[in-house]
Amino acid sequence: MSTYPDLEAWCGQIGRLDDALEVLHWDMASMMPTGGADARAEQLAALSVIRHERATDPRLGELIAGAGALDGWQAANHARIERRYQHDTALPAKLVEATSRATSTCERVWRTARAADDFAAVRPHLEEVVALSREAAAAKGEALGLPPYEALLDLYDAGRSAENVDALFAELSTWLPGLIEQVIERQGQASAPVRPTGTFPASAQAALGRRVMGALGFDFAHGRLDTSHHPFCGGTPDDVRITTRYDEADPLTALMGVVHETGHALYERGLPAEWRYQPVGRVASMTLHESQSLLLEMQAGRSRPFVTWLAPLVAEALGDDPAWAPDNLYRLHTRVERGLIRVDADEVTYPAHVLLRYRLERDLIGGALAVADLPDAWRAAMREFVGIEPKNDRDGCLQDIHWITGSFGYFPTYTLGAMAAAQLFAAAREAIDDLDGLLAAGDFGPLQAWLGREVHGWGSRYTSDGLIERATGAPLSTKAFRAHLERRYLNG
Amino acid sequence: MSTYPDLEAWCGQIGRLDDALEVLHWDMASMMPTGGADARAEQLAALSVIRHERATDPRLGELIAGAGALDGWQAANHARIERRYQHDTALPAKLVEATSRATSTCERVWRTARAADDFAAVRPHLEEVVALSREAAAAKGEALGLPPYEALLDLYDAGRSAENVDALFAELSTWLPGLIEQVIERQGQASAPVRPTGTFPASAQAALGRRVMGALGFDFAHGRLDTSHHPFCGGTPDDVRITTRYDEADPLTALMGVVHETGHALYERGLPAEWRYQPVGRVASMTLHESQSLLLEMQAGRSRPFVTWLAPLVAEALGDDPAWAPDNLYRLHTRVERGLIRVDADEVTYPAHVLLRYRLERDLIGGALAVADLPDAWRAAMREFVGIEPKNDRDGCLQDIHWITGSFGYFPTYTLGAMAAAQLFAAAREAIDDLDGLLAAGDFGPLQAWLGREVHGWGSRYTSDGLIERATGAPLSTKAFRAHLERRYLNG
Repeated sequence: MSTYPDLEAWCGQIGRLDDALEVLHWDMASMMPTGGADARAEQLAALSVIRHERATDPRLGELIAGAGALDGWQAANHARIERRYQHDTALPAKLVEATSRATSTCERVWRTARAADDFAAVRPHLEEVVALSREAAAAKGEALGLPPYEALLDLYDAGRSAENVDALFAELSTWLPGLIEQVIERQGQASAPVRPTGTFPASAQAALGRRVMGALGFDFAHGRLDTSHHPFCGGTPDDVRITTRYDEADPLTALMGVVHETGHALYERGLPAEWRYQPVGRVASMTLHESQSLLLEMQAGRSRPFVTWLAPLVAEALGDDPAWAPDNLYRLHTRVERGLIRVDADEVTYPAHVLLRYRLERDLIGGALAVADLPDAWRAAMREFVGIEPKNDRDGCLQDIHWITGSFGYFPTYTLGAMAAAQLFAAAREAIDDLDGLLAAGDFGPLQAWLGREVHGWGSRYTSDGLIERATGAPLSTKAFRAHLERRYLNG
Repeated sequence: MSTYPDLEAWCGQIGRLDDALEVLHWDMASMMPTGGADARAEQLAALSVIRHERATDPRLGELIAGAGALDGWQAANHARIERRYQHDTALPAKLVEATSRATSTCERVWRTARAADDFAAVRPHLEEVVALSREAAAAKGEALGLPPYEALLDLYDAGRSAENVDALFAELSTWLPGLIEQVIERQGQASAPVRPTGTFPASAQAALGRRVMGALGFDFAHGRLDTSHHPFCGGTPDDVRITTRYDEADPLTALMGVVHETGHALYERGLPAEWRYQPVGRVASMTLHESQSLLLEMQAGRSRPFVTWLAPLVAEALGDDPAWAPDNLYRLHTRVERGLIRVDADEVTYPAHVLLRYRLERDLIGGALAVADLPDAWRAAMREFVGIEPKNDRDGCLQDIHWITGSFGYFPTYTLGAMAAAQLFAAAREAIDDLDGLLAAGDFGPLQAWLGREVHGWGSRYTSDGLIERATGAPLSTKAFRAHLERRYLNG
């Protein structure tokens, strides 16, 4: 008798717990009053302990061992479950609970301290988070037979080796600095695009965002748009919650942020419903997740055809402004500048922000860098990779939530995702007749159908690279990404 | 060695799970898109099963048995835990899961069917909920040594017997019908108060509601006001979430609904922080919970002094209107009419709505009434108790959420709470110097301090009647309630 049906039931309960945790996290970031933070940390810690108990129960190990012969989807599900079991059993319950509590506290402190540029307030909490993350990396590395950092990376992009990332990033770093230089020089020869002037109320920006989301295929019967300090896509496949934040002087950042999160949301929403709550029914990796947001935001969303469609909608929602002329809007959307803030970076300089974080987090986990030295190391690496230096920690090492919440190994997936987005979009362009014409007409159906068929609907039936190779005919490389950047920024 | 410390740790985890469930329920009612309902039902069912496993684990029974000698608070906590263990072990896990799933589905169907006046759509789901509730009542009655209905009532007002409710309600019914008659006749002799005219935007109503909440002592660092179809107070003591709904033609219903829910919220917020997550740190009963909302809404909130303070705030927030003249506003706030909808009922006719529900739900659980016959039985009982009859089920048996979600035994606590509110307010009036003057000045601090000291801070250290007797010198009776109604409606 195969244990597989019981294995699915067991993992289905964990999946439902994960979904409940997602909703609680979304609420914490978008709805919760500040005074609710301690109580929420208690709730999350309690649920995390229960989840960990279920995920590490020896009975689960027995169910995994007794599954027997399985078909393709089941076998993939089984493999995902087994890998995740290896991850989870590597960590003692006390470490899981301590991490949940430490990251909740660190996040709460950070939310205030970031605004106050107060690294000293965050430091002891981040030290605890880093110490716990090192402990987790060592334990997982031991269990998975991987170097500590790679064991953390594996959680976000299963099966990808640190050597592979090193190779891709090394290749990238051979041409990216020169490209940045060339693009900035080229753009400096033309007059700067006109920036919008005036005040654009958050409510009008939100209405525009919802309209664009709807056109892109977001179904508001199965999701929401709200506000949070750090934009994210949360919730569950049947109830996808995306957030953004509004700057009333600059409506384009929120708008393109919404397009970005919509890319994430459509991936979640398109996951195979018949595998709901099972590991194989979840996204394949954070690399693929980011490929979907960047495909929508960067590949499609900042293309000339898309901007042609978008410009009149912006003018209608926010009032006439010379900035909304299609050519000017396109130039705003493709403006390249050396900036301090990763989430505000353009697609050309963004990978430089990731290269620096990749180096620093490898050193934090490896022990070569102490939290106390992080502000200095950040400034030095910014100078090296991006070419400028922050005047304070708010715009430096306090800007991101990832390390605060213990997410080490996540940053590289942004740039791996950018490469995957370019490679997938190139394949979609091959497969879809007159994709540019469709984008210019605001008809995103064929693109979404292709993505649903080639990416979303597969869940994690394959690894990132397996799925990318299946959809594009080649494993992940920097080739399409480089071609895209050169076409748009040097020849466009 | 006493097992008591481990008992607290065990129950603390259940308490944190309960809080997580509260947040998920709040989100379901106020934030969740319709398409998220099935997934939410799955999450709630999974968490409910886990909660049930913990709450019925034989190890918990052993921890209860081995507690040994305890001090007053610990002993009360132990007694609450033991009673709750008896409740929970009475029900098999499958019944708990089936009930969670059936009530989630029934609620989802009801949210649409109520608006469409479609009892037939709700009927099969309500039949399932009633069947499961009967099963639960029988199992609990067996375990607690109580008649089935009383076993359900015990969950909402622990230790109160159905005979006690019968006696209080029988006493009430000797004078309530005559009083309603007299009041309506008396009010009919004067001209009707002026109703407000025009449109009052929900946003302005919400701003007014938040201002009044703040004055009453609601701390927005520890709570929120949002919108839901059925107003409620949810969330957790450190993060209290109240909701209301807005009618743009009638701002007073939402406003007084907000005052009502604020009474619930201040009770939750005032619970003893040192007993957070333990049963003794929770509210003593739904009767006491309702006493706090009705004390604020009915006893204080519709008094002449309160209305004197409120009237200019209403005019400022919603614009001038003859209806906001203090004497007219008082007459609007104390207007008595035979109506179809319980939640819109005034404090004089409200108990009649409860008397009818009490009878019908006793018959539903007892088996004397089938769900199919509910619409007819409702109409007949409305004629008998309230004196009018609904033309449709939307304004009849579909109006309330309670039975839909399997809450049988809850309705009597509304009127028991009204009695308790009158009795507690009379005691507060004795204890606080010039309470009327304070209310007229918008100074609610002394009243809240008295309630905090006499009610909120005790959690469930005592039963409802124990706490009421301690605070007022007498067990719960109809006496103060009758005196209040006669003073306000016959002599005021």
